Amino acid sequence: MKVALAYSGGLDTSIILHMLQEDYDADVITVAGLVGQDLEKVERIEKKALDLGAIEHYGIDIKEPFIKDYIYPSIKANGNYEGYPLSTALARYPVAEKLVEIAEEEDCDAVAHGCTGKGNDQFRFDTTISLKSPEMKIIAPVREKNLDRKWEIQYAKDNDIPVPVDVNEPYSVDENIWGRSIEGGDLEEPANEPPEEIYDMTQNPSEAPNEPRYIELEFEQGVPISLNGNERETYSLIGELNEKVGEYGVGRIDIIENRTLGLKSRENYEAPAALVILKAHKALEELVLTKGELTHKQQVDSLWADLVYRGLWFDPLREDLDAFINKTQERVSGTVKVKLEPGSARVVSRKSPNSLHEPELVSFEDYGFDQRESTGAIKFQSLQGKSYRKKKDDGDA
Amino acid sequence: MKVALAYSGGLDTSIILHMLQEDYDADVITVAGLVGQDLEKVERIEKKALDLGAIEHYGIDIKEPFIKDYIYPSIKANGNYEGYPLSTALARYPVAEKLVEIAEEEDCDAVAHGCTGKGNDQFRFDTTISLKSPEMKIIAPVREKNLDRKWEIQYAKDNDIPVPVDVNEPYSVDENIWGRSIEGGDLEEPANEPPEEIYDMTQNPSEAPNEPRYIELEFEQGVPISLNGNERETYSLIGELNEKVGEYGVGRIDIIENRTLGLKSRENYEAPAALVILKAHKALEELVLTKGELTHKQQVDSLWADLVYRGLWFDPLREDLDAFINKTQERVSGTVKVKLEPGSARVVSRKSPNSLHEPELVSFEDYGFDQRESTGAIKFQSLQGKSYRKKKDDGDA
Amino acid sequence: MKVALAYSGGLDTSIILHMLQEDYDADVITVAGLVGQDLEKVERIEKKALDLGAIEHYGIDIKEPFIKDYIYPSIKANGNYEGYPLSTALARYPVAEKLVEIAEEEDCDAVAHGCTGKGNDQFRFDTTISLKSPEMKIIAPVREKNLDRKWEIQYAKDNDIPVPVDVNEPYSVDENIWGRSIEGGDLEEPANEPPEEIYDMTQNPSEAPNEPRYIELEFEQGVPISLNGNERETYSLIGELNEKVGEYGVGRIDIIENRTLGLKSRENYEAPAALVILKAHKALEELVLTKGELTHKQQVDSLWADLVYRGLWFDPLREDLDAFINKTQERVSGTVKVKLEPGSARVVSRKSPNSLHEPELVSFEDYGFDQRESTGAIKFQSLQGKSYRKKKDDGDA
Amino acid sequence: MKVALAYSGGLDTSIILHMLQEDYDADVITVAGLVGQDLEKVERIEKKALDLGAIEHYGIDIKEPFIKDYIYPSIKANGNYEGYPLSTALARYPVAEKLVEIAEEEDCDAVAHGCTGKGNDQFRFDTTISLKSPEMKIIAPVREKNLDRKWEIQYAKDNDIPVPVDVNEPYSVDENIWGRSIEGGDLEEPANEPPEEIYDMTQNPSEAPNEPRYIELEFEQGVPISLNGNERETYSLIGELNEKVGEYGVGRIDIIENRTLGLKSRENYEAPAALVILKAHKALEELVLTKGELTHKQQVDSLWADLVYRGLWFDPLREDLDAFINKTQERVSGTVKVKLEPGSARVVSRKSPNSLHEPELVSFEDYGFDQRESTGAIKFQSLQGKSYRKKKDDGDA
Repeated sequence: MKVALAYSGGLDTSIILHMLQEDYDADVITVAGLVGQDLEKVERIEKKALDLGAIEHYGIDIKEPFIKDYIYPSIKANGNYEGYPLSTALARYPVAEKLVEIAEEEDCDAVAHGCTGKGNDQFRFDTTISLKSPEMKIIAPVREKNLDRKWEIQYAKDNDIPVPVDVNEPYSVDENIWGRSIEGGDLEEPANEPPEEIYDMTQNPSEAPNEPRYIELEFEQGVPISLNGNERETYSLIGELNEKVGEYGVGRIDIIENRTLGLKSRENYEAPAALVILKAHKALEELVLTKGELTHKQQVDSLWADLVYRGLWFDPLREDLDAFINKTQERVSGTVKVKLEPGSARVVSRKSPNSLHEPELVSFEDYGFDQRESTGAIKFQSLQGKSYRKKKDDGDA
Repeated sequence: MKVALAYSGGLDTSIILHMLQEDYDADVITVAGLVGQDLEKVERIEKKALDLGAIEHYGIDIKEPFIKDYIYPSIKANGNYEGYPLSTALARYPVAEKLVEIAEEEDCDAVAHGCTGKGNDQFRFDTTISLKSPEMKIIAPVREKNLDRKWEIQYAKDNDIPVPVDVNEPYSVDENIWGRSIEGGDLEEPANEPPEEIYDMTQNPSEAPNEPRYIELEFEQGVPISLNGNERETYSLIGELNEKVGEYGVGRIDIIENRTLGLKSRENYEAPAALVILKAHKALEELVLTKGELTHKQQVDSLWADLVYRGLWFDPLREDLDAFINKTQERVSGTVKVKLEPGSARVVSRKSPNSLHEPELVSFEDYGFDQRESTGAIKFQSLQGKSYRKKKDDGDA
Repeated sequence: MKVALAYSGGLDTSIILHMLQEDYDADVITVAGLVGQDLEKVERIEKKALDLGAIEHYGIDIKEPFIKDYIYPSIKANGNYEGYPLSTALARYPVAEKLVEIAEEEDCDAVAHGCTGKGNDQFRFDTTISLKSPEMKIIAPVREKNLDRKWEIQYAKDNDIPVPVDVNEPYSVDENIWGRSIEGGDLEEPANEPPEEIYDMTQNPSEAPNEPRYIELEFEQGVPISLNGNERETYSLIGELNEKVGEYGVGRIDIIENRTLGLKSRENYEAPAALVILKAHKALEELVLTKGELTHKQQVDSLWADLVYRGLWFDPLREDLDAFINKTQERVSGTVKVKLEPGSARVVSRKSPNSLHEPELVSFEDYGFDQRESTGAIKFQSLQGKSYRKKKDDGDA
Repeated sequence: MKVALAYSGGLDTSIILHMLQEDYDADVITVAGLVGQDLEKVERIEKKALDLGAIEHYGIDIKEPFIKDYIYPSIKANGNYEGYPLSTALARYPVAEKLVEIAEEEDCDAVAHGCTGKGNDQFRFDTTISLKSPEMKIIAPVREKNLDRKWEIQYAKDNDIPVPVDVNEPYSVDENIWGRSIEGGDLEEPANEPPEEIYDMTQNPSEAPNEPRYIELEFEQGVPISLNGNERETYSLIGELNEKVGEYGVGRIDIIENRTLGLKSRENYEAPAALVILKAHKALEELVLTKGELTHKQQVDSLWADLVYRGLWFDPLREDLDAFINKTQERVSGTVKVKLEPGSARVVSRKSPNSLHEPELVSFEDYGFDQRESTGAIKFQSLQGKSYRKKKDDGDA
């Protein structure tokens, strides 16, 4: 049997790499999705895979598709699931896609991943794989064998698999340019305040610079194209924003999240750039979309985030919603200024050639209005309510 | 003719008090809704009304109904219209209600108010009046005579009506315990950053104390009943929160708002207590309501805020929505801890006897689950999407 | 072990009754939920249960709770899932409730039912049981042992279990007073026209009486209380309606339904009384509810039907939605006349003391309107669209 | 002054043609939108316009845009406002569009129409005109001068304007190929049964042929392209369907409708072809769209119909919604068979290459399912509900 394994270099997937060879008698091809990791780390992962017996290793740079195919649509959709900007969720899809592609090219009999049976990632992997390649077999040893962490560490020791130095860290961390998630340990209890040590991308607001700083983001058709007047490649724009915003103590998220399986889970995130970009994008939408568009888009955005969170990126409904979203974004171009102050990122200015804000309307006259004309609008709006009250009073009398 | 006028003591309503006597040949009863103003101010308003010819003045304390009948339901509904916590909107209703009551008791032929024909308040006044007393005539001189500010000042001077000292202030301000709104002048242009001087309830985040401070709010059935362990009368609880939160530079709101008539309008608000109470309330809901309830309630809350903003408090739909909301709130009891840091108010802890968060679920076993059982859930969720892909691939082939 | 089994007297549950004794070594108590079956049938079921070894049999009349606790709320909610009036779905809940109650009273170790692992009924049974009695073990032999029909018939023969005479009928039928469902055989293919023989409650429209007939239904707070002027106990009212409406060839339903597990399934139903009652109820709502209420209630009703179809009757969200629905129904009282013609049941008249239809509004004057006042309403409604067009034209120019 | 008038040849617009010349001192160009009227009628309208003083008459064939730009999108959107298939509503837009175009080409100073200030058509005309040509003046004499029917007839007599012979008919009728509306007289009272005489497109079900007849409609990307196997130009396809379906007594609609201004209005329609096409289209959607798509599209379709009914065709939101709708319709191709019986048109068969109905799923095995796998799906779906019950029981205990 030949299996393509989504490989991160961590404990879970290293053990699985070994198990696939031992228990499943498989030749294993490892696939690592790279999003801007430094070269040294990339090589370390490859070496580890080959050392552990992989017959081949693919280190695939998925930075471009991650930004263009996932981050962009998510910005347009104000991508946010119950307060979470979907950072890990979005990053799983290009990896799963690549995994399937390579498995098909290499004539693998199966793909494998290290997801547990309790989390969300199994949904993103399994569904993407089964939609992209309906006949492909999926091996998920942690789930299938109901493995737990203690067992894994013992297994690693027993089989000379290097155990990472941070294996006893209380928290489990996942990170990419769109955000960082911190789970586990005493954070699981919603009543416990997260300790300062869990944060890495954001400074404590009390230690933020006292001088305010302005960030000017230009959007074109819903996506950011320049920072403070300089056109920038998006990946580095996000990177710079993470630093600048994080320095001001902005970007910490602490929520109770409804997992796909239905469990409530306490989650902590850091996402300085994502929060500011999403806030600026929303502010621009408020300027250029009609009330009707904003109201309906809010529902579409919620539904979109639900699908993406639950693993259904390749569901036809997501594509349908994107047709709507993209149509609205044709006009979402303009510039938004965000003011950074300690603990705070506030939109203080927005401009757009497509703005529906018309200062002259305040005077009414230029628009052929007369203040008196609002009387009819008020009366008609309350017509049925008035009728209801009359009937009710009649009934009560 | 006998007219009951909603009287604030300001320029608009003082002029109207005079016009009603002169132009409408009316005896005028003035009605001032009081929400916690100090005694001296209350007496100043009364004296001014009588000086200007009112045959009677009612200074009505509406603090109690404002809190119990409007703020409470709004907290339960996470009351928020496009980012605005509805502070002024909510306060208009008890005034309009009292105005109608007094007009009916005093056998008035009409009620009068000072709203213009461009804003939202005319909707709240007119609709409340016409639903509460369908036959009551409404006089709105500013709208009917298409008056503007310049004309009003001249009229005041010509008729010996005292002109407030702040009449040339660039901004128009409205304020109550639930928030403060600042409009006008160069703020109307969405590209202009609001100057520091417009803020009164909130300090600049850069000048906030460096020491964090905790705020513990206890909720019972959706409304706050104690602060830092002390049961408190709500009015003073909100007052204290405004001070504490405002000191940390939290509570500034700067949005583009869709007015009832359809105009886009740039609005600035301060609402330190409201923001923190709403945030804590939402955090508690996340803990005790199901995913299904949260998803549907989000839509209900949006619709609720729309109705309240647009003047439709007494519409039957608002009452129907409240039946749903109140049912959900039966379980929204518990304690939320908010950490104040410069520019930031973050929920860091929540507890409830009705919490649906079950830490033991992480182990699955106690619940009779096996990790393997999620496989079915994943497959079934993507069943139709898989079928769609297969058909699509067949079609493409 | 002691087990309470939901027993219908049919093949599936008779086999299970035997298997529970043989394979699970259990003492079995059988529970049959009765909704208006004739006495002879009731006794036949009991005799069969005891003959097959049940240590006790409960024949429980659930007519009253079925009508009051399930049919009534469903009428108020215009209960309809993708065209299906939920007849079987609603009937499962009172049976599951009774099953749990008896199991607890009788100190059973488990409850058992005959649902397969592919349908919707397992959701309704399992969820009701696990919500009502979280610790109760559920035995579902058909699902657990992956049984199929052929195996079951052989098992029955091998074990002297009487096989119903209709065991080789191509269609599987379920029936109660709220409707009849017909599945299986060549009906599974959506392209096949259902043969006339599957219908039992409805005549062919071509053979309906040529004389029209009127049906007058009076509703009080959302539920029917009288038929053609005679106050009637609801069960018999529905029974009579089934006959009268069915005679006119009205009540056949043929749809593609999305099952809870995600499969698309072709379903045929007959529901003459349900269709006419729901149509009349809706017509009355159109008269007494505001546009805003109707629009929101349509969404609530859809969600309600989804929950009920998917087995989530005892979910808190269903109770929340009912709080909203019940509030709206306070006014849904009045009389609706339906005209029966061959193949057709048309609402031709509706009256209500709470009607919001005001014929005098056509004249406007009595309401203090002037035709000219609509001009403002039109202008304001299109304000943002107009602004959008102007900007677009500017951009295109 | 030069004015372009939307001219139908009826009493209202004939009077207006005269008034524009007399009272507004205008040169009038008349514009008639033609949708399949016979030549003789077309010429009669032109002659009448010129006789009454029009300086020019445009008889514009709008059949093509009516079908392609309005009926097609409406079928895709299951276009239906509270039961009304939008026949008149859809037809107003191409007329208003042409009116503006001609007014601009002819350098008119204004456009005029005959809508009253109480109905919906004024919204469709005014909004289309003001969005298409923001500076164009609109003259609506019936609304502006608050005219009523009695006054109009007298004015016609006084000014030698021919009064139509049916001027004293109790009902006001509007008709096009997509449907016919009948208003007025004793129909205004919702309690009155409509008399048989108001129907023209549909026979009484009692007099329908006893022999059933089949209609097979083929759809491509959401629109009908062939009838009973013959590819047909859509206009004639609809015409033939109107006849065939109407003969069976199918297509009568009797509803309480919420007008744009908020009045409730009793409305009667006939729309045999529209009803059958929409029903067949919906049946096809059920086969090819996922549950998620159907659920969301239902909300989108409702909103779409609202916009179209209220005059907002050219609102940006309608265009956004169409982007979503069109994306879903890419797959809505296939064949639907409808059985006509007296009073009844029932879908009895549907086929599509994109069908998501998979008969093999019933067996589960081919899909790698096992009946047991549904257990997990059931448990996870009720997880939070179960937690809620436990907490509730704890609380009650």
